[in-house]
Amino acid sequence: MIKVGIVGATGYGGRELLRLLGGHPEIQLVAAASTSVAGKPLAQELPAFQKIFDLDFETFDADELAKRCDVVFVGVPGKASMTPVAALRTAGARVIDIGPDFRLKNTDDFNRYYGAKHTATVLLEESVYGLVPWYRDKLADAQLAAVPGCYPISALLPLRPLIEAPLGNTPVIIDSISGISGAGKTPSEGFHYPEMNENMKAYKLGVHQHTPEIEQELLHKLQVQFTPHIAPLTRGILTTITLRPEKLFDPAPYYDCYTDEPFVRVLGADRLPEIRYVRASNFCDFGWYVDERTGNLLIISAIDNLMGGTAGMAVQCMNIMFGLDETTGLRWGGMAP
Amino acid sequence: MIKVGIVGATGYGGRELLRLLGGHPEIQLVAAASTSVAGKPLAQELPAFQKIFDLDFETFDADELAKRCDVVFVGVPGKASMTPVAALRTAGARVIDIGPDFRLKNTDDFNRYYGAKHTATVLLEESVYGLVPWYRDKLADAQLAAVPGCYPISALLPLRPLIEAPLGNTPVIIDSISGISGAGKTPSEGFHYPEMNENMKAYKLGVHQHTPEIEQELLHKLQVQFTPHIAPLTRGILTTITLRPEKLFDPAPYYDCYTDEPFVRVLGADRLPEIRYVRASNFCDFGWYVDERTGNLLIISAIDNLMGGTAGMAVQCMNIMFGLDETTGLRWGGMAP
Amino acid sequence: MIKVGIVGATGYGGRELLRLLGGHPEIQLVAAASTSVAGKPLAQELPAFQKIFDLDFETFDADELAKRCDVVFVGVPGKASMTPVAALRTAGARVIDIGPDFRLKNTDDFNRYYGAKHTATVLLEESVYGLVPWYRDKLADAQLAAVPGCYPISALLPLRPLIEAPLGNTPVIIDSISGISGAGKTPSEGFHYPEMNENMKAYKLGVHQHTPEIEQELLHKLQVQFTPHIAPLTRGILTTITLRPEKLFDPAPYYDCYTDEPFVRVLGADRLPEIRYVRASNFCDFGWYVDERTGNLLIISAIDNLMGGTAGMAVQCMNIMFGLDETTGLRWGGMAP
Amino acid sequence: MIKVGIVGATGYGGRELLRLLGGHPEIQLVAAASTSVAGKPLAQELPAFQKIFDLDFETFDADELAKRCDVVFVGVPGKASMTPVAALRTAGARVIDIGPDFRLKNTDDFNRYYGAKHTATVLLEESVYGLVPWYRDKLADAQLAAVPGCYPISALLPLRPLIEAPLGNTPVIIDSISGISGAGKTPSEGFHYPEMNENMKAYKLGVHQHTPEIEQELLHKLQVQFTPHIAPLTRGILTTITLRPEKLFDPAPYYDCYTDEPFVRVLGADRLPEIRYVRASNFCDFGWYVDERTGNLLIISAIDNLMGGTAGMAVQCMNIMFGLDETTGLRWGGMAP
Repeated sequence: MIKVGIVGATGYGGRELLRLLGGHPEIQLVAAASTSVAGKPLAQELPAFQKIFDLDFETFDADELAKRCDVVFVGVPGKASMTPVAALRTAGARVIDIGPDFRLKNTDDFNRYYGAKHTATVLLEESVYGLVPWYRDKLADAQLAAVPGCYPISALLPLRPLIEAPLGNTPVIIDSISGISGAGKTPSEGFHYPEMNENMKAYKLGVHQHTPEIEQELLHKLQVQFTPHIAPLTRGILTTITLRPEKLFDPAPYYDCYTDEPFVRVLGADRLPEIRYVRASNFCDFGWYVDERTGNLLIISAIDNLMGGTAGMAVQCMNIMFGLDETTGLRWGGMAP
Repeated sequence: MIKVGIVGATGYGGRELLRLLGGHPEIQLVAAASTSVAGKPLAQELPAFQKIFDLDFETFDADELAKRCDVVFVGVPGKASMTPVAALRTAGARVIDIGPDFRLKNTDDFNRYYGAKHTATVLLEESVYGLVPWYRDKLADAQLAAVPGCYPISALLPLRPLIEAPLGNTPVIIDSISGISGAGKTPSEGFHYPEMNENMKAYKLGVHQHTPEIEQELLHKLQVQFTPHIAPLTRGILTTITLRPEKLFDPAPYYDCYTDEPFVRVLGADRLPEIRYVRASNFCDFGWYVDERTGNLLIISAIDNLMGGTAGMAVQCMNIMFGLDETTGLRWGGMAP
Repeated sequence: MIKVGIVGATGYGGRELLRLLGGHPEIQLVAAASTSVAGKPLAQELPAFQKIFDLDFETFDADELAKRCDVVFVGVPGKASMTPVAALRTAGARVIDIGPDFRLKNTDDFNRYYGAKHTATVLLEESVYGLVPWYRDKLADAQLAAVPGCYPISALLPLRPLIEAPLGNTPVIIDSISGISGAGKTPSEGFHYPEMNENMKAYKLGVHQHTPEIEQELLHKLQVQFTPHIAPLTRGILTTITLRPEKLFDPAPYYDCYTDEPFVRVLGADRLPEIRYVRASNFCDFGWYVDERTGNLLIISAIDNLMGGTAGMAVQCMNIMFGLDETTGLRWGGMAP
Repeated sequence: MIKVGIVGATGYGGRELLRLLGGHPEIQLVAAASTSVAGKPLAQELPAFQKIFDLDFETFDADELAKRCDVVFVGVPGKASMTPVAALRTAGARVIDIGPDFRLKNTDDFNRYYGAKHTATVLLEESVYGLVPWYRDKLADAQLAAVPGCYPISALLPLRPLIEAPLGNTPVIIDSISGISGAGKTPSEGFHYPEMNENMKAYKLGVHQHTPEIEQELLHKLQVQFTPHIAPLTRGILTTITLRPEKLFDPAPYYDCYTDEPFVRVLGADRLPEIRYVRASNFCDFGWYVDERTGNLLIISAIDNLMGGTAGMAVQCMNIMFGLDETTGLRWGGMAP
């Protein structure tokens, strides 16, 4: 049994991690740290886990966690994981960070898009970007894995194989629609139920922090126009990618690389994904349409932002880091309905 | 009092028309025709209108309707209005058609996108495209108004003023997200509540019938890549337009034309609309973002597809056709929440 | 034109009032007071009303409002209207309060259920309970109308006519399910979209403040077991009433009183209401089932909590107080869909 | 590995079973029978299970299934399982039926409430009612388990322990609210998304088929007034039980029987469940309120109708029937959000 600790379990990414860890047959949750609720029983703070987890939240103590845990997941908000991750690494723990702090290699981009100075740049070199299909080998030995952002996962899985294709110079248009869990657990006017139910909106046009992350993982070969939207559902990201290639091409051969990927499902031409088929699963589904009339290539992808887009990918990283079957605890079809 | 008839009142567009007509102070509903439920009380078939309307559905009879009505709204499905509209016009009735049959001037486009031969082409010349801000003068005397499609309204109100701007040749990317009422009243697996709740999908990539309608009303100066999506809400269309101008420009001056439009609200740069502010209203709200980094211009618009996108625009057409204050019966702010 | 002022327009009841007032043909909104946003344009604070209302929020000033307004609506939270209503009455204004402070005649009940001492008890005598069908005559001359609570409206319209029936002594079971707008506009963990979407819960068992209001308006002839529930929708209250009469009886004759009520729709035996048919309307629909097997009488009622359950009833009160046709500005069928 | 077959996998209960079976570490799905889609790949018909299950639907053949499977789940609609279950039992298969046909021991009740004659009454004696906490011992050897209905599970888990309490003769009021997945997969006007979103309704007052099932499992000591409601969410049942005891009592001691139940969580007095804490889990949560004012005892319970209310309970039955740890494949906390 792998001994697992978690830091920041009360956020949405953290709760989804707990849900997956509760059902994972090869791990044992030995510690859950949370500054705000230290000392309280986990199952009192998170009633969904009554009769699943029987431990108390504890104060964050990097040495203590490093001693008791084989791996520590960190699920604190953006900009807040630099410090605890650095402490955990210093104490010798293997860390899987589901936040954004160790994804961007370029600290200028981090500073610009997150509006904060990076305080643990020394760890950026060892940090492995946890997009499993593209970093599987590096993850096996990783001491620090940075789980990708939810939007980037939905965009990169279909786009990364295409960077060798004749895509031209027009920026890629990425219009994503996210469920509201992506906005996190903090109540606000905009996500108060009666305001957001039956509502839709776009936000952070041109300045969303996932833009440089996507461009980095496309190896800076494509510029990205990323426009995120919010629709009234809890889970799911639907991403519509519009490419303007120099010359239309069939993308199918580029996706042969995914044939044996356990959680990437390439639907093919003229077949489109839906959130219902990936909900509460670790899958990314995508299909495409080649528009002869306009000369554009359209790709649509779907993930569950909390599972396939965060916690499931994190558990898959863990499985690889500890030599387990990659799919352990993750073999769930979409929850439809 | 204007005497109003309605043909095909049981669809979603028709029901919204009835809702608006019930509250309209200057009209009287004198006839409602429906083949499927002829003879039954309207308020039995549509319980929402008990104690509002006290008349029975009748069999469609063009001469009868022309005799009793000053204007007849037609709200039957696409391809099904050609015949009744032609009969009504022959009988001398003024007609407002909320369906698509009389929007496209190019019958080849109609045939291709609707998969049917147009059988009343002679009426296409007199048909006035009912996009009020752009056809107000023609509507005053119109005998036949073709209310625009919901997606086109959301795209054309922001795009039409820009056709004189330096937009270049790259196709305009229009990614729209619609509520499910846009799919109509007929039950199907895909729109069964447990399948569509918490779901999202794209559909009809490259072939949606609103594509030629948008291009026609942009005077064929722009090619359009229109990708419609469905999200789990009942009403609303959020449209995201990505333009790649030859050279970035400030769109604000182009929108001076809307200053006095009663139902177009130009929010300005860096201000974005939300469905909640237009729900159950006749408004179209839009704002934009000029992306210096990528060179793109982004515009986001929002409408209520059933009211501002269909029935409200239809009533506005009627108000103009009969010399009423354009806003009569339509002065409703957004229903938020 | 009746000159209308509003105090506390930013809450959900207040916004719905604004929506109805914007479309009301016989009134003019001349003042909107709000402590928190005084000085700001109403349409900036409430973007749904851009191009509908062109006035600024002002600081509350009772004399000023009394001078400029024929009637002032007060839409502040419970316990917060005692002071401004008293000031407005002293200044001579006619007042329609959509909050709870002037509904309960028994101040002990107020103190117990609201946890606050009533500071304007002298007004309780003149206050008229604004349940139109039962207080129409008194409302005509009312200087202060207290609009009923939303749950009470849904329960009292079906129950009040039955108080002369042989109902016995077993407490009436009232299980109501409300949309979330009933919880008000203040964001909280429990009504954060991802927490409340796909969620349901009961709350305030045995202690909800609408219990004494219902019992008062049943003239204390029936004890009430009121259990409110929350379901994931924005608007609507569905109320299920289970009565255990001494002897089963047909309730139909008791409802003859509603034949000419413009906004009460008695569906009859074995016909049940749905929220969709009353949404965004002023109607209360109800039907019933006489269960011979158990000896119980079941009644189901439906309202839109914000319109028929609050703001619509308030406007109906105003129409009566000013001698207008009662239905002015309120003749809207249910918004379905 | 236990070899599992499934008959009728395309319904909502069947799909949830497939979801749970896909993640169950001790079973292998060897056959899926479906008349309507025989011959087609399961993952084509149910895209949620691509890369999870790689088998084709086959025609129902009882002997074939009995030969290849250790156990067969049957998930066909009510009244349709009598025939295939009888055939499977004749062929020697152990069967777990998630439908209603083998729950009621009294065939008169079956005939009356289901409107059909029971054609396999001989199996009613061997059929074990699969309410695990109350039939665990019998299930160990069961050849035929009849998984309880979803509403009954939500009502019986809190009520069954109380049958020895001084409850008196007044019928128990059970007002349940269900998500829409309970209505099954067949599209209809009433459950078309735009009709049911933002809607609520009650149905089948006094005649719902779960009434006799609940009364049977309360050993006919209590009469039940069961009123089901539908709210706009996909999964979940919230049940509100109002009891009128002869004399108020503390129910806590009656619930000691559940201390070690893995999936029953007794919250205690004044603590109420919510759907979010049981969603996508096998748990039933309940709490209560003793109302000194009225003399009533109120209990609120929550389950996920598809998992804890159907497929999870079915898998728990299987685990018991095959000597596995009862919680295998079911140790999932609530999915919140």
